[in-house]
Amino acid sequence: MRPSKRAADEMRAVSFERGVMRHAEGSCLVKFGDTHVLVSATLEERLPPWLKGQGRGWVTAEYSMLPRATHDRTRRESTTGKQSGRTQEIQRLIGRSLRSVTDLVALGEKQITLDCDVLQADGGTRTAAITGAWIALYDCLSWMRQRSMVKEIPLKDHVAAVSCGIYNGTPVLDLDYAEDSVAETDANFVMTGTGGIVEIQGTAEKTPFSQDELLGLLSLARSGVEKLVGLQKLAVG
Amino acid sequence: MRPSKRAADEMRAVSFERGVMRHAEGSCLVKFGDTHVLVSATLEERLPPWLKGQGRGWVTAEYSMLPRATHDRTRRESTTGKQSGRTQEIQRLIGRSLRSVTDLVALGEKQITLDCDVLQADGGTRTAAITGAWIALYDCLSWMRQRSMVKEIPLKDHVAAVSCGIYNGTPVLDLDYAEDSVAETDANFVMTGTGGIVEIQGTAEKTPFSQDELLGLLSLARSGVEKLVGLQKLAVG
Amino acid sequence: MRPSKRAADEMRAVSFERGVMRHAEGSCLVKFGDTHVLVSATLEERLPPWLKGQGRGWVTAEYSMLPRATHDRTRRESTTGKQSGRTQEIQRLIGRSLRSVTDLVALGEKQITLDCDVLQADGGTRTAAITGAWIALYDCLSWMRQRSMVKEIPLKDHVAAVSCGIYNGTPVLDLDYAEDSVAETDANFVMTGTGGIVEIQGTAEKTPFSQDELLGLLSLARSGVEKLVGLQKLAVG
Amino acid sequence: MRPSKRAADEMRAVSFERGVMRHAEGSCLVKFGDTHVLVSATLEERLPPWLKGQGRGWVTAEYSMLPRATHDRTRRESTTGKQSGRTQEIQRLIGRSLRSVTDLVALGEKQITLDCDVLQADGGTRTAAITGAWIALYDCLSWMRQRSMVKEIPLKDHVAAVSCGIYNGTPVLDLDYAEDSVAETDANFVMTGTGGIVEIQGTAEKTPFSQDELLGLLSLARSGVEKLVGLQKLAVG
Amino acid sequence: MRPSKRAADEMRAVSFERGVMRHAEGSCLVKFGDTHVLVSATLEERLPPWLKGQGRGWVTAEYSMLPRATHDRTRRESTTGKQSGRTQEIQRLIGRSLRSVTDLVALGEKQITLDCDVLQADGGTRTAAITGAWIALYDCLSWMRQRSMVKEIPLKDHVAAVSCGIYNGTPVLDLDYAEDSVAETDANFVMTGTGGIVEIQGTAEKTPFSQDELLGLLSLARSGVEKLVGLQKLAVG
Amino acid sequence: MRPSKRAADEMRAVSFERGVMRHAEGSCLVKFGDTHVLVSATLEERLPPWLKGQGRGWVTAEYSMLPRATHDRTRRESTTGKQSGRTQEIQRLIGRSLRSVTDLVALGEKQITLDCDVLQADGGTRTAAITGAWIALYDCLSWMRQRSMVKEIPLKDHVAAVSCGIYNGTPVLDLDYAEDSVAETDANFVMTGTGGIVEIQGTAEKTPFSQDELLGLLSLARSGVEKLVGLQKLAVG
Repeated sequence: MRPSKRAADEMRAVSFERGVMRHAEGSCLVKFGDTHVLVSATLEERLPPWLKGQGRGWVTAEYSMLPRATHDRTRRESTTGKQSGRTQEIQRLIGRSLRSVTDLVALGEKQITLDCDVLQADGGTRTAAITGAWIALYDCLSWMRQRSMVKEIPLKDHVAAVSCGIYNGTPVLDLDYAEDSVAETDANFVMTGTGGIVEIQGTAEKTPFSQDELLGLLSLARSGVEKLVGLQKLAVG
Repeated sequence: MRPSKRAADEMRAVSFERGVMRHAEGSCLVKFGDTHVLVSATLEERLPPWLKGQGRGWVTAEYSMLPRATHDRTRRESTTGKQSGRTQEIQRLIGRSLRSVTDLVALGEKQITLDCDVLQADGGTRTAAITGAWIALYDCLSWMRQRSMVKEIPLKDHVAAVSCGIYNGTPVLDLDYAEDSVAETDANFVMTGTGGIVEIQGTAEKTPFSQDELLGLLSLARSGVEKLVGLQKLAVG
Repeated sequence: MRPSKRAADEMRAVSFERGVMRHAEGSCLVKFGDTHVLVSATLEERLPPWLKGQGRGWVTAEYSMLPRATHDRTRRESTTGKQSGRTQEIQRLIGRSLRSVTDLVALGEKQITLDCDVLQADGGTRTAAITGAWIALYDCLSWMRQRSMVKEIPLKDHVAAVSCGIYNGTPVLDLDYAEDSVAETDANFVMTGTGGIVEIQGTAEKTPFSQDELLGLLSLARSGVEKLVGLQKLAVG
Repeated sequence: MRPSKRAADEMRAVSFERGVMRHAEGSCLVKFGDTHVLVSATLEERLPPWLKGQGRGWVTAEYSMLPRATHDRTRRESTTGKQSGRTQEIQRLIGRSLRSVTDLVALGEKQITLDCDVLQADGGTRTAAITGAWIALYDCLSWMRQRSMVKEIPLKDHVAAVSCGIYNGTPVLDLDYAEDSVAETDANFVMTGTGGIVEIQGTAEKTPFSQDELLGLLSLARSGVEKLVGLQKLAVG
Repeated sequence: MRPSKRAADEMRAVSFERGVMRHAEGSCLVKFGDTHVLVSATLEERLPPWLKGQGRGWVTAEYSMLPRATHDRTRRESTTGKQSGRTQEIQRLIGRSLRSVTDLVALGEKQITLDCDVLQADGGTRTAAITGAWIALYDCLSWMRQRSMVKEIPLKDHVAAVSCGIYNGTPVLDLDYAEDSVAETDANFVMTGTGGIVEIQGTAEKTPFSQDELLGLLSLARSGVEKLVGLQKLAVG
Repeated sequence: MRPSKRAADEMRAVSFERGVMRHAEGSCLVKFGDTHVLVSATLEERLPPWLKGQGRGWVTAEYSMLPRATHDRTRRESTTGKQSGRTQEIQRLIGRSLRSVTDLVALGEKQITLDCDVLQADGGTRTAAITGAWIALYDCLSWMRQRSMVKEIPLKDHVAAVSCGIYNGTPVLDLDYAEDSVAETDANFVMTGTGGIVEIQGTAEKTPFSQDELLGLLSLARSGVEKLVGLQKLAVG
């Protein structure tokens, strides 16, 4: 029995609220249950120096949590003077995930930054961020198309993410904090709308896992991503 | 004529949404028109080292803006490695303002941190933050009273803040960004529910101002703070 | 009775010593009693990036205290790795104050940096710094006129600053450290030679203050600034 | 055809040189072809603060590359002032991997730090580091057993790591730099001596991959880890 | 012919002004010609952690230059976020030099910090700092003896420093900036009142020097230090 | 009697291993007994900004120790966020020493960086680094000559370094850690192949030393450097 009473293959309530930040070219408040992430997409002319003059654009991400998004207050990274390893790991993952479905050549020499700020955390902040960032990116690219900056929306596919884990010996979908903090194994899956795998990060916190367990988690994740992609389609459709 | 069509002594629509962050002891989403600030109040046992053993508590504040709260994206302070002078100036002001109405001895040896994160900015973020922080602080202190950590809510008065300025030669109340960026003079007033002045910060951006102009701004501010305190009373009443 | 035996409206002995740093285009050792600040003005061709190509110059300031300017040794900011919030607040104030009386267009695309280093502190370091910085700036601009870099000295007026406060219930002028550390209210006033107000920063450390008290402090400040401007005129006359 | 002429399932020459740092409790110079990593294991009494008094020890890792380990010189992280996201991601992975096979309760309240310094890089530095770190850790724990600090070597199993990827459409084992920089998909597998999976990190650099491709890579990785564990046994046997 | 018209073995005018900082236990404004250094000695109960409980005290130094001490403005180290290599090298030298003549056991478990702030630089700032720091240290120790914190002044000897160099082929004493910037060889000598050598730092900027040249510089330095020690005796006598 | 049983004028076993880093233009693993330093020479087109357009090149150095090069683990400078004073002092010394024998005009507008990473420390790391860096620099310059980037190897002479000290009252050559940590006086000498002195750094850790003692150390150093230069010649001959 999961603490939230959910079935093993049941996700939390997921919602997307678009256009929530008036200055941003695209934005989305995504909720996976009590995990709330505010994502903005910013279009800029500047590129990372190593990319200049190659006829391609870039999509990157930054991730942060409000100090009291968590049960105990977390120290603000601007006062510690640097981003933690966890923060950097997550924002690199978000950036890679969104780049995997973007046609960077069609985007042209522009950069889109996806700022993912966690307003409230209850497990799965990185997967919610990726899933919501797709909406914000889509809206930013639509904004560009309306201004004839691109001919078509340069997205090759949807991308969404979900975590799975082995909780009390059972594979379960979309871990919340109560589960995540005690799960034996914890894996994040990033997948496209057509079922391709973009990223797998699986970690055995206590006991190594087997190939069969991996396949069980992958199967759960596939069903979760399908639902998320369906909700993304409803949101932008 | 103000860009927003408001009368000279007319504030923007002000609202408070309480209890918006499930982990915090107190929280408030405050809106002054398009300026939105999310404030949480965190209660902790630890104190600044210089205050230990004096039988008094402390109220402090931190302030930050999401990168895309502004028209152009602002670089995240965790990546620049330090808080800007502006950020530090504002969070010191918020802390002083809230301490001025708190009975720190009655609070006991505890610290309350008010995190003020600007989700969207349209001028007046520091005054909105102070005004909303009073609500979050009140709710945090109520939470303590419910748990018998304090006998009475250790607040001596309300505190609220508003900006005024001379725009096109006319003193106006509650500057928005369009006004703030071109105003000749710009002043922030922090005042209590009983009309005491806690803090004045007046700056002549272009032309020095006179004593009469100062009194004109003070009069507008007084009416604004009265309205804000009225709204605070409704919110917690 | 003030600890220093001064009358309520009596300033400390004020002196300016010009030309004390042989490398600087302008310099001044300013003393307000036991508060001693060494100010240098440096002329440079470079401008802040956001100001380039606008046909205007810039005046900025930096502020620091020697570690043993104070009663107890203060840690050097180069070893903590960053400037404190207090330092940044003060140097921003000094810069704004001096810019308010400088004709930046007549200055041309040049930058003048006013370095204010406190050799000894006894309250009122920021007001002494502003008042002495006007002398250093004047001398730097004279240096430029002698070299035909400007036609006239591009200063629109004098600017000087003084602190006032309510000490034991009485408004007093030019607080020293013994008064400043216990004053109920503390305000810094920056004013021009013609009596215009450039900046007011008033803070109620303990009890909120009233409009009448504010006017009382303003009146004291006006008399103090008049004396300081008179001394500036003598110094450069 | 692989640039190195290796067969698809052929690893590079692997070697372990033990005891190469005279001051360390355990050390190993591990080579995977032209990738050379020097690992030391340091035993200390201190623990991370959050672990104190729980009757358990800790194993952690730090990772760095010499500036000229790479084809072009990389800037030293001590001069940039912080560790990059990549560095932090890798050292967190190494630490987790080694903890997964260590009996932290049997270790007692001690910390072992595994410093992994890349002397020369040619792809696969993190997998070489994990594989060599097991040797250094083993030797450090043997050193403790010889001094009766532990009764038995508190290791539950071997752990080793290898990368696999899809290069020119073919799954290949143990990518070198020439392959890694152009591979479509790139995955790192950390596995135990008994075949349990400790960590999977798979990333589609260009095209999403399928479940079958994942299983193909996993099968290659399993054979590679078996060889590595065999070599570890020979090294310490 | 030296730019300053001095004879090869002629020092600049040297002066010590004691007691110039009212808060410090000892202080000295030392001038070697146009090089002016303000030194304060601060007595504190705290010790470096590695020295605690050993029955010995510590003498340390910090060194800084005001931004406009130099011909061109130097960026403030508090804004670059760290002390330069040059700064650290100099302050380590000052600390070692003063410790060499202090009886740290007789001092007891206390720390004295010598803050050396260069108000104006014209070559030889480190040698002036060491020579003036001896005065400030002496006065701090006298202050302690007056309060019976030590029985005798725990100084074993005088210490003073001077630079010598080969300028246009001739060994000269006490280089000023005009000489220092073009000298072929440049050496700093720290010596005691009884002629012992505490530190030699000799550098060939262009051409290596010979043993005879080294002895020539040492002989000049010896005569310079004798004069400096004579002046120290007059100052404190 | 020295702890190592060496005669007073006996150096440790010295060896150079060239070409140990496949990516570097020059490299050398230098050993002075148990002190092992890995040096790479990197050729780059970029120059320090202040040197651009002067028709001269630059040689610079960076120095670091692996955390467990020492008996107790030293914290990694990338995690403390800055290089220590000791590190900066040493790398500045290495750079100066190698520049003293390089014809920077013949080198042309290029920069060579000598990275000196201490793999194992037993005293004398800076002198081993300088001596080995000459080999790496020579090999880098040979690499350039082979590619016709320079006509002749732009080296004016050999340079090598050794430490001497007074241990138990006797001057001894090439201090190891056991001696260095208790020596009364400690001096590093950098000298050329033709016997010129490039740098002397002599420090009296406890008792000031005399001119005769200095000459005794210099004589030992001269014999040591002669041996080192002989070994350099064999290595590259």
